[in-house]
Amino acid sequence: MNRKEATQKILDAKFAKGLTWNEIAMESENAESWIVTALLGQATMTRPEAEKIGTLLDLDEEVVQALTQIPFRGDAIQMPPTDPGLYRLYEMVLVYGPTIKELIQEKFGEGIMSAIDFELDMQKKEDPKGDRVVLTLNGKFLPYRKW
Amino acid sequence: MNRKEATQKILDAKFAKGLTWNEIAMESENAESWIVTALLGQATMTRPEAEKIGTLLDLDEEVVQALTQIPFRGDAIQMPPTDPGLYRLYEMVLVYGPTIKELIQEKFGEGIMSAIDFELDMQKKEDPKGDRVVLTLNGKFLPYRKW
Amino acid sequence: MNRKEATQKILDAKFAKGLTWNEIAMESENAESWIVTALLGQATMTRPEAEKIGTLLDLDEEVVQALTQIPFRGDAIQMPPTDPGLYRLYEMVLVYGPTIKELIQEKFGEGIMSAIDFELDMQKKEDPKGDRVVLTLNGKFLPYRKW
Amino acid sequence: MNRKEATQKILDAKFAKGLTWNEIAMESENAESWIVTALLGQATMTRPEAEKIGTLLDLDEEVVQALTQIPFRGDAIQMPPTDPGLYRLYEMVLVYGPTIKELIQEKFGEGIMSAIDFELDMQKKEDPKGDRVVLTLNGKFLPYRKW
Amino acid sequence: MNRKEATQKILDAKFAKGLTWNEIAMESENAESWIVTALLGQATMTRPEAEKIGTLLDLDEEVVQALTQIPFRGDAIQMPPTDPGLYRLYEMVLVYGPTIKELIQEKFGEGIMSAIDFELDMQKKEDPKGDRVVLTLNGKFLPYRKW
Amino acid sequence: MNRKEATQKILDAKFAKGLTWNEIAMESENAESWIVTALLGQATMTRPEAEKIGTLLDLDEEVVQALTQIPFRGDAIQMPPTDPGLYRLYEMVLVYGPTIKELIQEKFGEGIMSAIDFELDMQKKEDPKGDRVVLTLNGKFLPYRKW
Amino acid sequence: MNRKEATQKILDAKFAKGLTWNEIAMESENAESWIVTALLGQATMTRPEAEKIGTLLDLDEEVVQALTQIPFRGDAIQMPPTDPGLYRLYEMVLVYGPTIKELIQEKFGEGIMSAIDFELDMQKKEDPKGDRVVLTLNGKFLPYRKW
Amino acid sequence: MNRKEATQKILDAKFAKGLTWNEIAMESENAESWIVTALLGQATMTRPEAEKIGTLLDLDEEVVQALTQIPFRGDAIQMPPTDPGLYRLYEMVLVYGPTIKELIQEKFGEGIMSAIDFELDMQKKEDPKGDRVVLTLNGKFLPYRKW
Amino acid sequence: MNRKEATQKILDAKFAKGLTWNEIAMESENAESWIVTALLGQATMTRPEAEKIGTLLDLDEEVVQALTQIPFRGDAIQMPPTDPGLYRLYEMVLVYGPTIKELIQEKFGEGIMSAIDFELDMQKKEDPKGDRVVLTLNGKFLPYRKW
Amino acid sequence: MNRKEATQKILDAKFAKGLTWNEIAMESENAESWIVTALLGQATMTRPEAEKIGTLLDLDEEVVQALTQIPFRGDAIQMPPTDPGLYRLYEMVLVYGPTIKELIQEKFGEGIMSAIDFELDMQKKEDPKGDRVVLTLNGKFLPYRKW
Repeated sequence: MNRKEATQKILDAKFAKGLTWNEIAMESENAESWIVTALLGQATMTRPEAEKIGTLLDLDEEVVQALTQIPFRGDAIQMPPTDPGLYRLYEMVLVYGPTIKELIQEKFGEGIMSAIDFELDMQKKEDPKGDRVVLTLNGKFLPYRKW
Repeated sequence: MNRKEATQKILDAKFAKGLTWNEIAMESENAESWIVTALLGQATMTRPEAEKIGTLLDLDEEVVQALTQIPFRGDAIQMPPTDPGLYRLYEMVLVYGPTIKELIQEKFGEGIMSAIDFELDMQKKEDPKGDRVVLTLNGKFLPYRKW
Repeated sequence: MNRKEATQKILDAKFAKGLTWNEIAMESENAESWIVTALLGQATMTRPEAEKIGTLLDLDEEVVQALTQIPFRGDAIQMPPTDPGLYRLYEMVLVYGPTIKELIQEKFGEGIMSAIDFELDMQKKEDPKGDRVVLTLNGKFLPYRKW
Repeated sequence: MNRKEATQKILDAKFAKGLTWNEIAMESENAESWIVTALLGQATMTRPEAEKIGTLLDLDEEVVQALTQIPFRGDAIQMPPTDPGLYRLYEMVLVYGPTIKELIQEKFGEGIMSAIDFELDMQKKEDPKGDRVVLTLNGKFLPYRKW
Repeated sequence: MNRKEATQKILDAKFAKGLTWNEIAMESENAESWIVTALLGQATMTRPEAEKIGTLLDLDEEVVQALTQIPFRGDAIQMPPTDPGLYRLYEMVLVYGPTIKELIQEKFGEGIMSAIDFELDMQKKEDPKGDRVVLTLNGKFLPYRKW
Repeated sequence: MNRKEATQKILDAKFAKGLTWNEIAMESENAESWIVTALLGQATMTRPEAEKIGTLLDLDEEVVQALTQIPFRGDAIQMPPTDPGLYRLYEMVLVYGPTIKELIQEKFGEGIMSAIDFELDMQKKEDPKGDRVVLTLNGKFLPYRKW
Repeated sequence: MNRKEATQKILDAKFAKGLTWNEIAMESENAESWIVTALLGQATMTRPEAEKIGTLLDLDEEVVQALTQIPFRGDAIQMPPTDPGLYRLYEMVLVYGPTIKELIQEKFGEGIMSAIDFELDMQKKEDPKGDRVVLTLNGKFLPYRKW
Repeated sequence: MNRKEATQKILDAKFAKGLTWNEIAMESENAESWIVTALLGQATMTRPEAEKIGTLLDLDEEVVQALTQIPFRGDAIQMPPTDPGLYRLYEMVLVYGPTIKELIQEKFGEGIMSAIDFELDMQKKEDPKGDRVVLTLNGKFLPYRKW
Repeated sequence: MNRKEATQKILDAKFAKGLTWNEIAMESENAESWIVTALLGQATMTRPEAEKIGTLLDLDEEVVQALTQIPFRGDAIQMPPTDPGLYRLYEMVLVYGPTIKELIQEKFGEGIMSAIDFELDMQKKEDPKGDRVVLTLNGKFLPYRKW
Repeated sequence: MNRKEATQKILDAKFAKGLTWNEIAMESENAESWIVTALLGQATMTRPEAEKIGTLLDLDEEVVQALTQIPFRGDAIQMPPTDPGLYRLYEMVLVYGPTIKELIQEKFGEGIMSAIDFELDMQKKEDPKGDRVVLTLNGKFLPYRKW
């Protein structure tokens, strides 16, 4: 079973059991955002991690196995994304990407922010004028090698 | 003068004067990340704001005027971006976009994170294993209207 | 069952029952245009709303469930659309988009018309020279945040 | 002089004179939204109409002439548009296009809404929760010919 | 059953019965070119028209029903078309499109040739140097509205 | 001088002289539609033909020379075309292309309609319900070679 | 059965029988390169030709029938082709296409080499420095019509 | 001077001198098809070869120098090509590419026809039914390495 | 069975047996990198080679047969690749491609590095600052033919 | 002056001085492949490094300055590249990319080869059957972070 099929089985099981991502993440030592990423087929679990999820969601053995296979990342959306929620992230790259490049260069020197040694956090910040989504992207600075 | 030409003039002046973005931002009441965004042609200044920058960088009147015109945003990069620093941001959308969509839906309900009522922050976090770039994206949650 | 499959089941049931969108919308407190949007897989119903539609159209439980899941919007057409009726809408953006941007900026200031806090209406206006389609797009103005 | 160059001259002159679209439209018997469309190079003026605008904005004869030439429409933006304000219009087609097609078919029969025998209006609707942009698109229904 | 599946069933039945388009068109009051268009899934029949075709070709009820549903037009080919016969039509637009635009503007004024209030005819013209295909495209002139 | 530059010079001269395509075509033994095609840079004139046009429009020698050079055809528009008048032609290929392929195969056998041994005619047909554009495309049938 | 499915059946039967294209072509009066083209779904056989192949390869009746249907050509590869053998042909067009256009124009006048009244041959030319593939493309010259 | 600019200068000089490619090729020991390729910027001349051409066409020193620089090949056309003469070559790859791949594999084994150790020839073959263009593509067979 | 299906069967069998690529390669006289390439459907095995793999992995006869069929190479990924590991290779071409072209030209003369007479090696180089991936690409230099 | 313009100035100066990349690299402590990369606008020099090159090639001050500015990488080629030498590198990613991904995962675990902490080497390996280009790509392994 490939990761895409496994993802669909997991979403179906989550719906059938009426579980939230938060409840699923409680079973794990990792952050909720990482667990969701793995269950959507964009990261890999160890066998014990996959088994815990398998038990919680009553998944077949082959779905559990699929979770331990390294995926082909980035296959869950088309670019540019048509869904408005995803498109807004894409738009932030379009509009603010050059700002981020300038600031990294000034503060760190010539290099980039890693998307591999990277972690993500999402918080809800309540606000009387409308609650706010606060995303924190935390990536290691990688300087270009000169040889 | 259009905003793209103005951006080039500003970058040239910044280089000639040997100023950093941080030094330029000190002239303003806004955050450095917003100032850089505006000077790269992706946001609009009031006349007094533009004049302050004009004085600091010895810009021609028409560059100052250009800074007060509402730009056509998103024209500073091609997608997918070829520069590695920009591509990594694009890649984060590819890999983590679906995670973010799922988490927003679970925590907030059906809606999106605004890219308009939005602000950006970048911090350098020192770390003995390699310093880290920490980006904070803060956008208002917008629920879908049902009518 | 995903939303795309559910949409096909709904269209088949609508055809088999010989019902119009208008007759279906009468079962609901929402506007016809919203109901059609939801049944085409571009908006989400509450469980009671979905059940009402399920009863009216004799839908299977899994179709009813699908209607309560948040969709991945924008997946119902390819761009540019090949169907002439859809292409004309696309063409209006091509030709009149810049006009709309200029007018919003002049009347409201720097910002955009929301596509989320948004509603749509369609009326038939009889006219001896040929009836007219009148679309009303009503979206909240969102000013850009400055920080 | 082609229409694109003429558009730039007109925008420069409008800025230099400090005129609003509304003030420019007052010189004409046509609606403001049509005047803006024509001055952005997407519609054609008669010689007397172009001359009035030319006088108001102190335009060169060749800019006035350009306004009387039939343009190659749709050349003012790239698709999908990168500017958020324009993208939202594109997104409305992505998400609500199928709804509009269904409703036209049910209310009018097999045919389309014309983008040629078409007019556009934009109103600002004040609202304590945030002002709203109301766009009205009014196009003739064209039934498919059967032969 | 969607229109694409119906088209395949119709082509199979036509082949099995050994009928020509001309023989099929004789059953109808419409022109052969319109009948072919409808049977290829690009136009819609009334119930009685669909039934006549259904009887002639021994089609299942659901194929007959599909013929009465308004299709999503333009989904039968990819652009640019790879088949040489279709590509030549595309090439005519590439090479002669600007000529046609100029001539319509000069003879009719500012407007377009409708592709909706439109009909098509194809004739074989015998010629000793090689027979010729003569296509006649007949569309209503639609002037742009000015408001 | 390349053909594109020559085309612009010709359009400017035509406008300055106030000539119609019809008046220009009168100078030639060829059809108006061919003359327009050649002057738009999509066909080639002999030296005497080019000189006649040069004299009529007061063109420079290098423009006259350009008209005698074989062009790189199809470079005058982008596909899909954004101008509504050109798009409608493209749409006819999308919707009616398969019909034309079927009819040619049935009436002529396996082969195509040439776009090279081809001619175009446009007529205005007056009609009380709205004048009609009648395009006639006349191309030699080319059978596939079998070897 | 469509031509694509028939092609797969033919390749399977060829493999199972252990036949070469050369052995298959011996059953026919046509050239090997034409036979391969037809069996790959890019040309059409008469009923007797298809039957001979059907007998040789033990094909089902519906595969034999498929061979007699006019295909939608050009659907066997994506452009640019990813397979190196096919890409090299594409590259020859990229690099040598302009040379061929110039030479045809000089030797024949304004016109093209037909891809319809066309035949292909491939020979193996032994060479001590490495054998060589010799492709001969033979197409009728088609002069542009002037009208 | 880059190769593209040099190509334009060469074409202008060829036109001004009234020389044919054949006459130019006579100055060289290489085949006409190679000379045209080099002069169109797709191959490189030695200094003496470039000088001979320079003398014949009265080219400036910098054009002569450009001819000795290794070009960035394949930049002279866009794919798919819009010019009918070039498109037909592209179409031959679309339709006959798979045939060529099959025949090379059967006659030579697993490998490809080189586009680098490659030569091209074009002949005019007179024929009462219409002269024929005969292209010969001659490339070394390169077997895949297995390691 | 086509090569793509065979690849999936092989990956499944490898996983079920708990074998590494290294263990599989030990069964063969070829390098591990070549074996992996062949088993991923990008190179061809002889019958005895395929049988050895078939025995080791308990593959069905039709999977073994598929391994002996020449594949359509390059069909395993989309470009640009979305998976970060593959994208980095693509990025190296974007950033360092021009450097490689310059160096080959200077050291070897006008020609290219073959991707056919080519071999690949990957080594792990331990390093206290982080282990390193060392890829060696070894291709024959192919000089352009001049004729 | 932007980096692209600077690159052209450098190539012109290199040609005029008759210097090789090897001779230029001798002025530097860095590897030739890095120097070429920097001079082609894909890496950044310190002021002293840029000055040395400036002196050697007699470059203007603004070219020297440009060499010290961080570039927008990846802007020197279009993808897929049309030049055969560059295309072969792209093809290696297409054909061998999946092999490399599998081998890295097996030898190193889940992660990627960095294109930032990366170096490149090119050697000429003489071989009686034809000299060989040997590229060595050396990048740090980056494991995915799990949080």
